[in-house]
Amino acid sequence: MRAAVLRNGHMIYRDDVPEPIPEPGQVLVGVRSCGICGTDLHFADHGADMLALTDQITGDSGGVHVDLSRDVFMGHEFSAEVLEAGPDTETYPPGTPVTSIPVLLSANGIEPILTSNSTIGGYAERMLLSAPLLLPIPNGLDLKHAALTEPMAVGLHAVNKSNIAPGETALVLGCGPIGLAIIATLAARGIETIVASDFSLKRRELAGTMGAHQTLDPAQGSPFDTIKPAVVFEAVGVPGIIDDVMLRARPGTRLVVAGVCMQADTVHPFFAIAKEISVQFVLAYHPDEFADSLRAIAEGDIDATPLITGEVGLDAVGQAFDELAEPEQHCKILVSP
Amino acid sequence: MRAAVLRNGHMIYRDDVPEPIPEPGQVLVGVRSCGICGTDLHFADHGADMLALTDQITGDSGGVHVDLSRDVFMGHEFSAEVLEAGPDTETYPPGTPVTSIPVLLSANGIEPILTSNSTIGGYAERMLLSAPLLLPIPNGLDLKHAALTEPMAVGLHAVNKSNIAPGETALVLGCGPIGLAIIATLAARGIETIVASDFSLKRRELAGTMGAHQTLDPAQGSPFDTIKPAVVFEAVGVPGIIDDVMLRARPGTRLVVAGVCMQADTVHPFFAIAKEISVQFVLAYHPDEFADSLRAIAEGDIDATPLITGEVGLDAVGQAFDELAEPEQHCKILVSP
Repeated sequence: MRAAVLRNGHMIYRDDVPEPIPEPGQVLVGVRSCGICGTDLHFADHGADMLALTDQITGDSGGVHVDLSRDVFMGHEFSAEVLEAGPDTETYPPGTPVTSIPVLLSANGIEPILTSNSTIGGYAERMLLSAPLLLPIPNGLDLKHAALTEPMAVGLHAVNKSNIAPGETALVLGCGPIGLAIIATLAARGIETIVASDFSLKRRELAGTMGAHQTLDPAQGSPFDTIKPAVVFEAVGVPGIIDDVMLRARPGTRLVVAGVCMQADTVHPFFAIAKEISVQFVLAYHPDEFADSLRAIAEGDIDATPLITGEVGLDAVGQAFDELAEPEQHCKILVSP
Repeated sequence: MRAAVLRNGHMIYRDDVPEPIPEPGQVLVGVRSCGICGTDLHFADHGADMLALTDQITGDSGGVHVDLSRDVFMGHEFSAEVLEAGPDTETYPPGTPVTSIPVLLSANGIEPILTSNSTIGGYAERMLLSAPLLLPIPNGLDLKHAALTEPMAVGLHAVNKSNIAPGETALVLGCGPIGLAIIATLAARGIETIVASDFSLKRRELAGTMGAHQTLDPAQGSPFDTIKPAVVFEAVGVPGIIDDVMLRARPGTRLVVAGVCMQADTVHPFFAIAKEISVQFVLAYHPDEFADSLRAIAEGDIDATPLITGEVGLDAVGQAFDELAEPEQHCKILVSP
């Protein structure tokens, strides 16, 4: 079958990927749409560094080994439709539109559907999902919009972890898909003052569309010169941001770090100590938050469609990866196998 | 009158300090005991750096200026007795034993009693306190023990900010006075597993006396090889500790940073992101926590006396500062004017 795979740092189109075969408890699905995530872009450019950092945390015990000298399957923001259940497996009827948290249960255990030499992700015609984790997509929701469940769940989780309360001001640093998902969630919660900051005019416009009440260009001065928020969401993920927040934020600020900085970073603990700042690092979401995200999109509480700025086939994923480096051009590109 | 002052990085004995005169709302007190704090030691060695960092945070707007080319008064862990109220000021009768948060209210505003060219601290025969902030020391409590109210309040505050719950395991990194105050508070709260780590045998013994259930020598291996605590209290304050916790702690760990690292520090945000670690930086205490600390000591809920390892007069403060660099010798030295 057809798929786009990571090979030597580039996304390559293949038409000879072996057909996945569902084990008991698994379901073969046809991918309908899969969003390209910043994590995938980063893994394509810095996969070795990311694997080395992960190894540092997990030590010998852990994690799934990825061999960068072999093809790597990616794609974790997908919608699909049921094709065929594995042996002795009950699931929804063929044709049912579904999504799932990107996790595959198998006889070998639990594997994330993220970066793998063997487990096929959403940049493919077909993939395997886990019957117990399938969520049917409510009638009528466009499967392209349903593919945004995953990135919107990341924003939902970050907002949940912030414990932001009505009346508190939020500053969102960085208006990529995660920053925008945070903004949409804050707006859906009724937060009254949402300020967003990004160097890109296009991204600032998107932030306004998603619910930001004020947008700032950090090239014109620090956002903290304009507002002193109670909660800061960091969705940039480059070195120096955390320290800058610690330096400029007001006492008692809660900083939620949703941006994934893979490099070593320098901070001055004294800044944070003097102001009793708290820093909550966040990652992904809980399964119930993923389901909440799907429901919010399906019921129209959150309109994530403005994020979609492009759509490509499996043969153009490589080009899409290149184009996503330019924030004035794109935000979220969907792959439609 | 007599006092010990910081001059060119050393504590100097003087007998010619002008007598402080209480303004309205202030009270002249006779210092009975004043603990030497690690912050004072650090300011003696690195005062210019500390002032520069503070200036970075406060900018032009802020803070109290300290001129290091002039004598600096310090001493913020004091007990005293009332001598004389300022004009039109009601207070406790002369002879009443009192303590106070180290803050002086005056016509010029609010000034911390910490490091000042003009506001005299506890390393002196007499000092000024603020009538509304005075707390009488309950009958019978030794004024030396009452001088430990302040450092124990720092530990109490750190524990409060941790939101530690019954059943959770606590690891305290560093068993100086603040680490020991944290241990004592955790023990008074009934936390069932308190593990303490310090390179010094003497300090580990003190940790056990204060309530630690297990002590570890980090020279023998990382504490995280032995336990995976829910809450980590960092009371060391040197570069590298925060990153090491982020690397080795279990997912979901709450890190409370009570150690005051004045240098730039390197962290890998990815470690903390992958585990959704939260970092709460803490400083000082609220006035009600200070009062709680005094009450806990006075009622015997917390016995802080093992911390006291020495007592000197005003003429030997310089020597005491030198001796406190050696953790096998000392923990808390009290100055008795």
